[in-house]
Amino acid sequence: MCAKHFRHKPPTQLDHQQEMLLVVPALKSQVNLARLVRLAGCAGIQKIITAGSDKVDAKIARDGADHVVIEKRRSLIPVLKKLRESAYHIVGLEQTESSEVLYEYSFQKKTALLIGHEGRGISNEELQVVDTCIEIPVYGMPHSYNVVTATTMAVYEYCRQFHG
Amino acid sequence: MCAKHFRHKPPTQLDHQQEMLLVVPALKSQVNLARLVRLAGCAGIQKIITAGSDKVDAKIARDGADHVVIEKRRSLIPVLKKLRESAYHIVGLEQTESSEVLYEYSFQKKTALLIGHEGRGISNEELQVVDTCIEIPVYGMPHSYNVVTATTMAVYEYCRQFHG
Repeated sequence: MCAKHFRHKPPTQLDHQQEMLLVVPALKSQVNLARLVRLAGCAGIQKIITAGSDKVDAKIARDGADHVVIEKRRSLIPVLKKLRESAYHIVGLEQTESSEVLYEYSFQKKTALLIGHEGRGISNEELQVVDTCIEIPVYGMPHSYNVVTATTMAVYEYCRQFHG
Repeated sequence: MCAKHFRHKPPTQLDHQQEMLLVVPALKSQVNLARLVRLAGCAGIQKIITAGSDKVDAKIARDGADHVVIEKRRSLIPVLKKLRESAYHIVGLEQTESSEVLYEYSFQKKTALLIGHEGRGISNEELQVVDTCIEIPVYGMPHSYNVVTATTMAVYEYCRQFHG
């Protein structure tokens, strides 16, 4: 039996600033971008850099829309190169021949997490400027997680490794 | 740099059947149910028991709609009691005064994960028949994860603990 609800619990204070960024291509679905913004807001992620031009739907993103900086860029390749120069480790969330399994992967604190397009995944040009790829095992049908679901798992794993 | 894509990678074979079930109230959003079905399908979760009467949108649930058993029930309380009798550990995903933090929680293999309604969370009557509550730290605005996002994190944590 569980004790009573604790609704609208205040957020947990981190003893550090979250140093993960999300780098997001122009997605097929505007809803997915808005959901990523809410995820980022809750997880304390300060910034999303995206090649998409979609407006963020605040009905879905909630307060995340006011608290997460959304930087829009034409192309992600120069962004990724610049992040690398600023000591970010670029992690691609993609099934490749050399991807590490998320369960066993140790994140670096300064991580830029590159997400793939819903249909095409991460482009080959982008894969060239990625430091590591990670993937999440799938055990059944359909054979791939939704892009927000996969990102949620990676963000959770990052938070789990650096909480407190 | 990452090696080339491995699109449509076949699912990972588990050496056991996934013994987690999802127990889901009548949700406000039909989309959220469909997203849970896709999540369950990918994670190898065989069954969702729900008090909702919504049809599952197969455009969102994908093949999950064909591979996950959806059991519809009028009320979840008798379901939860019966699952308990069948040696399921009932875990409520809810912020309560006694919730354990997901990072530190060790799942039992036979787990029925009870999800809360988007607005009202898990009802007090349901909390009476729950064995443990777990919660996920939130570090920023908005102060709560979307119901599917929170469920995704709990399902990921379960898979992480029992993979291989």
